[in-house]
Amino acid sequence: MSVTIRDIEIGDTNPIALITGPCQLESLDHARMMATRIAEACAPTGTRFIFKASYDKANRSSLKTARGLGMEEGLSILSKIRDEFGCPTLTDVHLPDHCAPASEACDVIQIPAFLCRQTDLLLAAGETGVAINVKKGQFLAPWDMENVAAKIASTGNERIMLCDRGTSFGYNTLVSDFRGLPIMARTGYPVVFDATHSVQQPGGQGTTSGGQREFAPVLARAACAVGVSALFIETHEDPDNAPSDGPNMIPVDQMADLIGTLRKIDDLMKGR
Amino acid sequence: MSVTIRDIEIGDTNPIALITGPCQLESLDHARMMATRIAEACAPTGTRFIFKASYDKANRSSLKTARGLGMEEGLSILSKIRDEFGCPTLTDVHLPDHCAPASEACDVIQIPAFLCRQTDLLLAAGETGVAINVKKGQFLAPWDMENVAAKIASTGNERIMLCDRGTSFGYNTLVSDFRGLPIMARTGYPVVFDATHSVQQPGGQGTTSGGQREFAPVLARAACAVGVSALFIETHEDPDNAPSDGPNMIPVDQMADLIGTLRKIDDLMKGR
Amino acid sequence: MSVTIRDIEIGDTNPIALITGPCQLESLDHARMMATRIAEACAPTGTRFIFKASYDKANRSSLKTARGLGMEEGLSILSKIRDEFGCPTLTDVHLPDHCAPASEACDVIQIPAFLCRQTDLLLAAGETGVAINVKKGQFLAPWDMENVAAKIASTGNERIMLCDRGTSFGYNTLVSDFRGLPIMARTGYPVVFDATHSVQQPGGQGTTSGGQREFAPVLARAACAVGVSALFIETHEDPDNAPSDGPNMIPVDQMADLIGTLRKIDDLMKGR
Amino acid sequence: MSVTIRDIEIGDTNPIALITGPCQLESLDHARMMATRIAEACAPTGTRFIFKASYDKANRSSLKTARGLGMEEGLSILSKIRDEFGCPTLTDVHLPDHCAPASEACDVIQIPAFLCRQTDLLLAAGETGVAINVKKGQFLAPWDMENVAAKIASTGNERIMLCDRGTSFGYNTLVSDFRGLPIMARTGYPVVFDATHSVQQPGGQGTTSGGQREFAPVLARAACAVGVSALFIETHEDPDNAPSDGPNMIPVDQMADLIGTLRKIDDLMKGR
Repeated sequence: MSVTIRDIEIGDTNPIALITGPCQLESLDHARMMATRIAEACAPTGTRFIFKASYDKANRSSLKTARGLGMEEGLSILSKIRDEFGCPTLTDVHLPDHCAPASEACDVIQIPAFLCRQTDLLLAAGETGVAINVKKGQFLAPWDMENVAAKIASTGNERIMLCDRGTSFGYNTLVSDFRGLPIMARTGYPVVFDATHSVQQPGGQGTTSGGQREFAPVLARAACAVGVSALFIETHEDPDNAPSDGPNMIPVDQMADLIGTLRKIDDLMKGR
Repeated sequence: MSVTIRDIEIGDTNPIALITGPCQLESLDHARMMATRIAEACAPTGTRFIFKASYDKANRSSLKTARGLGMEEGLSILSKIRDEFGCPTLTDVHLPDHCAPASEACDVIQIPAFLCRQTDLLLAAGETGVAINVKKGQFLAPWDMENVAAKIASTGNERIMLCDRGTSFGYNTLVSDFRGLPIMARTGYPVVFDATHSVQQPGGQGTTSGGQREFAPVLARAACAVGVSALFIETHEDPDNAPSDGPNMIPVDQMADLIGTLRKIDDLMKGR
Repeated sequence: MSVTIRDIEIGDTNPIALITGPCQLESLDHARMMATRIAEACAPTGTRFIFKASYDKANRSSLKTARGLGMEEGLSILSKIRDEFGCPTLTDVHLPDHCAPASEACDVIQIPAFLCRQTDLLLAAGETGVAINVKKGQFLAPWDMENVAAKIASTGNERIMLCDRGTSFGYNTLVSDFRGLPIMARTGYPVVFDATHSVQQPGGQGTTSGGQREFAPVLARAACAVGVSALFIETHEDPDNAPSDGPNMIPVDQMADLIGTLRKIDDLMKGR
Repeated sequence: MSVTIRDIEIGDTNPIALITGPCQLESLDHARMMATRIAEACAPTGTRFIFKASYDKANRSSLKTARGLGMEEGLSILSKIRDEFGCPTLTDVHLPDHCAPASEACDVIQIPAFLCRQTDLLLAAGETGVAINVKKGQFLAPWDMENVAAKIASTGNERIMLCDRGTSFGYNTLVSDFRGLPIMARTGYPVVFDATHSVQQPGGQGTTSGGQREFAPVLARAACAVGVSALFIETHEDPDNAPSDGPNMIPVDQMADLIGTLRKIDDLMKGR
């Protein structure tokens, strides 16, 4: 089964697509700059991308960290990026009544990992009819995602992608179990690997999450060799000064090289 | 710091209180019967209890399992139980706009473990002014609960209890790390141990969670010896036929004995 | 099933016995001083103890840390302590041919956790006929200890104790799963809880293991409330300057109080 | 740093080498047949292999399962295979005094994961001067292997390879953390990925370990994309009837295809 998002077909026999962008929306100008640079990084390999950004970081470790622009301004920016760049857009939602407005500005609604078992959110997302990218909860086994997908599919919307972003492993640490990718693929839905959040060090003893940016390309390569339909990789022009997820975002000036490597592995595995 | 709920003081020098009741509300008659039997089980030791039941199981493993009576009917039942039995009531909420109505029928609002990082829910709960019982996410370290409590406390509501219900340990398994109880107690807030969900086997390969009821008393005893302010123990007159969490609920006819044992350990530890 | 070691009966209806002493033998004088102080700490409650010390730390994190006095001198000291104090002695062995000599100086041979699957060591230990205390490997589930015990029992020696010292939980961390104690008890063999090594932080990024001494009494209390036949607690007059396991040993001047508390919980649970 | 074993150079810029063979030696004829078939599977890609087999399974789950031919006969077979096929041989050792004889029949001595912290075994292995393949203990973090390697290197023998075979993840399950490969590579020693034992399901409730053979190629591909110097893959002509590790060995008739795929990924990553 593949999911077509605008003119991008996402499936296990298609070239990997990218879900990419800054973690958090900063301004229209910043989003434009990032979309421009991402398009440039993707051009040499003809890699298709979905522009991802969040309008609200609704579950941050601490109250003291920035939450974002809010839904109205955020969705307006995403809508403009889609119009100007012709790329599909994706954002995450946190409450059922966010789904309808998000589905007007975005081609993909993303369900955060912590919320992947919230039935009302899954149903509201499904009912919009746009594609849904569900992150596997850090607390879930990969085979448990079948029930999650079934909740969405009960709305008649089968445009579902299942995304691995790591599994709890002791305290403040995630581990990527690559057996999970083929296990989730047994559902028939396209599988996405989130290389950014898989290297997050959630919580920690302070007030923000840490990360190990240096391992994001390592795990992304592994995912391509295992076989995935898309990769989720957040990027920023200056990660160390980004308002969120800085420790695990890839500097945008390294994206072209990384995409080049990943596409080679993906082409090899998919027999191109 | 202790939290007073109606006339029950919950703190680390007070006798343990119980948060108890059936997992899911079934009917007013059933709730009355359960409250009666719980009151009987608590009477010999003079143990104080908060009646707990859910009106909506919003995050069940599968869509095919029962969700409950809904908010309106559920809150009406909880309100009647409070009036008739004079006991405080507790229910869990899943969306910010559930907090205000829940706070009218209940003395304690409970934040589910999966949702313990959702800032808007924590703030809405805090703003009601009623006491809040926050479950530690299965994906969180105990020291990370300090940030969770700080989000609630930012509303000016310091009537907070922190509740351990197990931590992810491999797939479909939780483990109770008893170091977590004194670590969470460093915040100054009363600490609750949830013996029912700590023995849950989340997800599993089927469509419901399993459980190991036989270990709930074992872990409850351990928690009392470590030292807690309250215990959370779900109970039912016929767990194997209960609409949810059957595999880990204690049969209500075993509650008096269990409470007796737990109170003896608690009395010993608190020097009574 | 209980195991009698000299005149101490170790079983789930007997008062808890202690396996205690310094982690590592330092000298005959030091061992005498420790045995004297331990005997004093045990006297008020009439608690029986087995004197434990290692002659060789054969599996330290790094080569640069002290290994100990060696087998010959170490066993000679243990033998003298047994004669002078009338207490049983215990030491750990690392190679099959250590078992016979160790069994002459000691009443209990201990199998280290890392070695609990080494068939030849288990058989050699069993064949000595002395009691065997096997630590559960950090990598093993509690139910897997049945096979370990069966290897020893195949020698005709059923004087077996099964000891929990924590289970791997992410990196450099152990967790104590208290469900494991009743699970191991299903074998019929007495179960021991090792409060010292359960709070070890194995490895770490440096060259020694860390520890969280403050949680050893916490977990020991929990174990007594769950129900055990014996506790393993290492102690030292100056843990911070001990040659090994300093971060998790209890100062000997705190032992009397700790034993007093543990005996009260144990008496309560065993109906005395 | 690379390690040269006979004429095979193993390093992070060399084509991946294979450590392969049946888990357990069965007979000289069986070993010859396996070596023949492995040589055929490696020939098309010119992949170099080290023939691996065990003469003694010294740490099996249960006493009732077969241990093997014993050291004398086993080493004699390995020595003959080396002479007849011109390939290096590898076997694992369990006691310090096995190292010297093993080093005469084999070019590589392997330290089992459970024993990777046993100082005397590491030193005895190092002193033979042959190459050493140390498995990372399931209970160790990848950065802890630096201390393990330092113990061997203290003998003056720097011909060390560090091998990942999975990390404890809950009960009866291992997980492969692919961040561990570059972390271990920081030591400068060649890194090996063991695809066979990484998919083992250790212990289980029965008397043997289970396995998930279908994921061995998946994880082997991931390891090649991350970057390794060698792969460890056990194989058998009829895994379901092999005397040990059947559930995770690859049928030998699938090896040529698998090696072909792995070499393509390896060539791509190493810029050939």
